[in-house]
Parts: sequence; structure tokens; C-alpha cells
Amino acid sequence: MKTAVIRKAQFNSAHRLHNASFSEAENQRIFGLCNLPNYHGHNYTLEVKLIGDIDPQTGFVYDLGILKDIIDEEVIEAFDHKNLNLDTAEFATLNPTAENIAVVIYNKLRARIESAYEIKLKLYETERNMVEYPC
Amino acid sequence: MKTAVIRKAQFNSAHRLHNASFSEAENQRIFGLCNLPNYHGHNYTLEVKLIGDIDPQTGFVYDLGILKDIIDEEVIEAFDHKNLNLDTAEFATLNPTAENIAVVIYNKLRARIESAYEIKLKLYETERNMVEYPC
Amino acid sequence: MKTAVIRKAQFNSAHRLHNASFSEAENQRIFGLCNLPNYHGHNYTLEVKLIGDIDPQTGFVYDLGILKDIIDEEVIEAFDHKNLNLDTAEFATLNPTAENIAVVIYNKLRARIESAYEIKLKLYETERNMVEYPC
Amino acid sequence: MKTAVIRKAQFNSAHRLHNASFSEAENQRIFGLCNLPNYHGHNYTLEVKLIGDIDPQTGFVYDLGILKDIIDEEVIEAFDHKNLNLDTAEFATLNPTAENIAVVIYNKLRARIESAYEIKLKLYETERNMVEYPC
Amino acid sequence: MKTAVIRKAQFNSAHRLHNASFSEAENQRIFGLCNLPNYHGHNYTLEVKLIGDIDPQTGFVYDLGILKDIIDEEVIEAFDHKNLNLDTAEFATLNPTAENIAVVIYNKLRARIESAYEIKLKLYETERNMVEYPC
Amino acid sequence: MKTAVIRKAQFNSAHRLHNASFSEAENQRIFGLCNLPNYHGHNYTLEVKLIGDIDPQTGFVYDLGILKDIIDEEVIEAFDHKNLNLDTAEFATLNPTAENIAVVIYNKLRARIESAYEIKLKLYETERNMVEYPC
Repeated sequence: MKTAVIRKAQFNSAHRLHNASFSEAENQRIFGLCNLPNYHGHNYTLEVKLIGDIDPQTGFVYDLGILKDIIDEEVIEAFDHKNLNLDTAEFATLNPTAENIAVVIYNKLRARIESAYEIKLKLYETERNMVEYPC
Repeated sequence: MKTAVIRKAQFNSAHRLHNASFSEAENQRIFGLCNLPNYHGHNYTLEVKLIGDIDPQTGFVYDLGILKDIIDEEVIEAFDHKNLNLDTAEFATLNPTAENIAVVIYNKLRARIESAYEIKLKLYETERNMVEYPC
Repeated sequence: MKTAVIRKAQFNSAHRLHNASFSEAENQRIFGLCNLPNYHGHNYTLEVKLIGDIDPQTGFVYDLGILKDIIDEEVIEAFDHKNLNLDTAEFATLNPTAENIAVVIYNKLRARIESAYEIKLKLYETERNMVEYPC
Repeated sequence: MKTAVIRKAQFNSAHRLHNASFSEAENQRIFGLCNLPNYHGHNYTLEVKLIGDIDPQTGFVYDLGILKDIIDEEVIEAFDHKNLNLDTAEFATLNPTAENIAVVIYNKLRARIESAYEIKLKLYETERNMVEYPC
Repeated sequence: MKTAVIRKAQFNSAHRLHNASFSEAENQRIFGLCNLPNYHGHNYTLEVKLIGDIDPQTGFVYDLGILKDIIDEEVIEAFDHKNLNLDTAEFATLNPTAENIAVVIYNKLRARIESAYEIKLKLYETERNMVEYPC
Repeated sequence: MKTAVIRKAQFNSAHRLHNASFSEAENQRIFGLCNLPNYHGHNYTLEVKLIGDIDPQTGFVYDLGILKDIIDEEVIEAFDHKNLNLDTAEFATLNPTAENIAVVIYNKLRARIESAYEIKLKLYETERNMVEYPC
């Protein structure tokens, strides 16, 4: 049976939901307040889950100190106190919905963590809205 | 790989656990304080998870504004500030345990949400007691 | 300088807001959904704060085990899994608003705790609605 | 003895800390990441406390439904999903620190709530950083 | 479709991470501050999930009062206010990482709960570090 | 009117409540499980509140980055992952109750923060037990 370890982190970003190929009316109908032109923001809470086997020598599935460093490098440095639309290459054209942010973070972490570990993410955009990827 | 979106909601209801086919002694033994005749109540917290694919145009799995409206119509209007045993058709004879409440809510939401989306619910009856359905 | 100790507890009760001297229309206008006749309910979270001096022998302001027992006897046994309107003498005629519940609990605890300690209560009716007494 | 009622609300805004009269180096030294030019954002959680007397007829200090409406009009409509620096008159020149946001909200609410009620605010900018005004 | 019930509990323990077969330098490199010789401690929060079928007579998957008693006997009495390394047979030689604590608790609960129920655990060591077993 | 800023931090420590001048029976009666000889532990959550005036130039009462550094130096480095009884000079003879820990932290912070700022602390030993000093 596998075991999972989970590490929580937070970052504070501005964003705006917008699809340049939609009309202004469509953008407003689909994205509502989230489409307002000057951006709004969130305290994003991220949970990174790694699923693997417990190393009998250490009792660890994965060193959470190392996982924290990877999250700091790949997520916090990239997105914290940034405007996702303006300041990041990842969301220059990709709409920064919580779903897409989770996929982008997954791909960044997947490239850093050995494939023996399954990765699952949970991202809270607000206390009431969250996403999980993959699911 | 699939993605999930989760929307949280709350409702405050009175209820009593009771099975009319049990003896009074059985009801008391099985349901304890929850069997007291004049009802008690809870702040129920509901998490509705929809599992699907990210729409590449919107970046959404499902519009959470629409999901909120469906939850408001099917759950909040039906159960909030109600006595589940006395005020609702669903629990006129069905025992309003957290498990049964989750199943009832699932069926109500299942009827409103396209079958392409898998639905999973988590219902908190208290901070220490929760149920998940389906699981 | 004084020090405070705080103990948290929870109870689950049904209640209904109603003033028999109001017309039906007034009751509905003032109390809204909370006036529905068959009761609804809440997970009430109570914080009891005692303000006093640190006993240099024990390092305690007040033994929190004893405070827990007093809360259990005066609050949990009295109100948990009860219908405040129907099952309690305190709210037989007094409207069980969060404000009044806090005052009633204060008076019950005040009678049990030495006057050297100032008592302050915080009562959460929901995550978004709370009261403090005295203030 | 007075009683307090507290109502919690949330709004999601973008902001940037900056003082146009400071040099660029000073702005960066004092405001750090919060000075980045393209804005970042937060889920602000606001607690509005009104201190007054319990009305013996209603058992209320203040109708929390009315307080919710006032908060919606004065705070949520004004600041939710907005860029505080660009979209609001209040922070066109005033630096939108949590302290200043609390003072601005206080003044807006003070103008709407009878002077018999003392108002106190708590504003969470993140889970770890909060302000209280007045204090 | 199966249904899950979840019961939350807490225990406060001291522990130290250490592998006697590692050199001192290795212990320090791998376990860092957690290796300090005089122990530190945590408020562990445990969620026990039982997956099964709803009994149509009771509306329960499992009586949460009975589950609470089993958790009290197997977990709280065994580990609460204890030094995991010094006071428990389970961690006399097994390193008390959150992963290993979860496995030990699983085995203790598995021996008490009918095999018809699948058991899953989540253990919070801190607000930011958690494990799940089995996963 | 004054304004407060609050910064939250956490540390994980082992401790044991004991008064060497008490008999063994007294120690056990007064401190209960907390008197067990091999220590237990907690995730302590600390809230440091500074009360002062908003600087009109910065919009800050106090730079929370500086406050974080002071908390790190005076509290986290001193107590995190430590055994309070064995590893710290402050609690070599002083009983490490939450009350005494709060007073010790207050004195350490008071020595670092200008007297123009009033300091108030809240310390959570568990989710249900907290202290405030001064009060």
C-alpha cells in the first residue's frame, strides 16, 4: 500500500480572466467580475501531495524540506507577489484560471520530482473555490 | 488526466435521528443524544466536487457561478433554516443522518449536472464528523 | 498586568427566533428565515476567557481541566443536542438569539467561577456571525 | 455591560504598495515584493464588530442582515474584484496597506451606522498578517 | 457506490527523528532540527475514514460513537501526552515520522474494525505537513 | 485612535509541567497528563499584536517583515524544535505553562520593540486552549 505526504504553501497574486479570441460581451458573460480589466487577486493555498513508498531507513516518503525548496523555487518565486497575466511567461496567453494554474504548477513540479512519485495538487483560490489536478 | 473543481456551501438545519420501526430503547441506544425528541441542529458544510476536463476556451472545468446557483436552488433553498424531519419531503421517512443527507443531495445535483461530470460530495456535520459520497 | 486563559467548546442545538408579543408579519420581517416554525440549528462554538493572575506555584491562571468540567456541566449538558426553545428553562420565554445565549451562559458561569476572575465570552453561531459578551 | 456582534465578509483585490514621494530604492526597501509594479492580490477577510446594547424586544444588538447589506454596499461592491490602486477613488493616492484599508472601511461604515454603536474592525490580509482598527 | 464516514481526533506528543544505524552527521543532515536530542512535539490531528455501505435501518455507515471509542483506546490512550520514542513500544525502535505513525495507527485500527470497512487515514503533523495512508 | 498589526508564527516544542517543590502526588493532581516524566509536545501558534499609529508616509504601523525577523530570532530560534524544560534557560526552573511561555515571550519581544508600541500576545497551546498576555 502506498503512502502520501502533503506540503502546503501560499502565494499572493493578481490575475484577470480573459480570452482575447472572445468578444468583450462574451468575456464579461463568461468571466463576470473576474474579467475586470485592472486585475484583482487572491491568496492561493497550494497542497502538493506526493505518493510513494516509505523508505525503511528514514521513515520518509519524501523529504518535506526538499519538497518545500522545490515548491519555493518553482511556485513561490515564480508566482508570489506577481501579476500572473503580466509578469509570468506561463500565463502570457494562457488564461490563469485556478484549473490552468494547477496544471502549470503540476508540470513544473513533475519536471523536478522523480517519476516514482505520483503527484496530486489541490489549489484553493478562495475558501469556497478549489481545484484538484490530476483527479 | 481529469481535473476537479470544488465549491463549498453551508446550511443550518434542525434534525433528529429516529427509526419508527425501532423500539424506543433501540432508538436511544443507537442514536443516543441525536434521538432526543425535540430536535437539535447543525451548521452543515458541503463541498461539491465536479470532475471533468478543462475547456481549452475558458480554462474552466465547470462555471463555479452556475454550480453555486444549482447548489443554492437544490440544497440551500431546500434545507437551510429548515427542520429536515418536518419541513422536507426527502426526510419525511428517511432518517436524516449525514450519510443519507449526502446521498439525497447527490441525487438532486446528479439530476441537474451533465453526466459527463463525475460528482463527489463531502458533508461536514460537525468539525469532527464528516461523510463522503460516493466514495 | 493580567493574563487570560481561554477554553473552547462546542454544542449543537436547534432554535427558532420568535417574539410572542410581535405580530406574525413583524416576526417574519425581523427574524426572517430564523422565524420558521419548525426550528433550525447550529454548531455553536463557545470561547470562555478568564482574566486573572498567574499563580506563581502552578503557572496557571485557572486550571483549564476544571474550567472544562464547569463548561460541560453548565453549557454542554444544558444545551447540547437540545432544542433551546422547547427543552430549556432559560429560553422558554427568552428569545434564543446568539446575544441572549451568551448572556445566559455568562450568568451560569459567573455563578460558578470566583469573582476574582473576569469572564468574557465569544459565541460563534456560524462561521460568519459571532457575538461577544460582556464587551 | 455592552454586547458585541461580529459579521465576517471577504473580498478579493489587487494592490501595490508605493509612495510616489519616495525614491525607487526607498520604495523597494520599504515595501519589498509588495512594491512590484504590476500588482499582486489578496483574499481579504473582514470582521466588523458593532458594540451596543441588546434590544430586549428582539434579542439583537444589531440586525446582522442589515449589517451584511451595509458591508456589501460599502465594502464588497467598492473593493471586491477591483484593483485598489487603479479602480478606487479611496486609494488613488493613499497607499493601500492593510492599515489604510481598515481605516477607509471604518470611515465608510461609520457614516452608515448609528453613533450609538461603537465599531471595531479586524482585517486579514493573509493568514499570518492582520490589522485591527480602531484599537 | 460506497460511502465514507470520517472522525477527527487530536493527540499531543513529543518525538525525535533518529536512526541509530546512521552516523550523527547523517542523522543531522537527514532529520535536521527534528533530530535534536531532547525531543520536540506536535499537536497531531488524525482523520480516520471508514468506507462501507449505509445500513438502511440506521442510516449509518458506522456508528461514529463506537469509532470515537476505538480511536480513544487505540490512539489517544496510547500516544496522547506521551513521548513517542520513550513511552511507546511501537516507536521504541521505529522512527516516529508522520508516515510511520500513520502506518502504526492503521494497523491498530485495522485489528479492531471489521474487514468489510476499508480504512484510510490522514495525519497532520503541522498545519503545513500531512500524510495519508494507505493511499 | 490607535491601530494594531498582528503577525502569526508557529513553533513545535516538547514540555512537561512540574513543580519541584510539590510532592509527586500534588504534581500529578495539579498537572495530570501534562506531568508525565518523558515530555509531550505541541504546535504552538503565536499571535504578536503591536498597537501604535499609522505612519502617514508608509501606511504601516510597523514593518511586518521586521516583526517577523524579531519573532524568528527571539521565539522561533529559541523554542522551535526544542524541549522547553531541558533546552532553554528560560524554563530551566520556570514551569512552561502556556501562561508562563507567553510572559517569557512578551519580555523578550518587549526588549526588542520600541516602547511607543504596546505589545499584546495570544498563544494557542492547542485548538481548544489559549492564553493572552497582557490582558
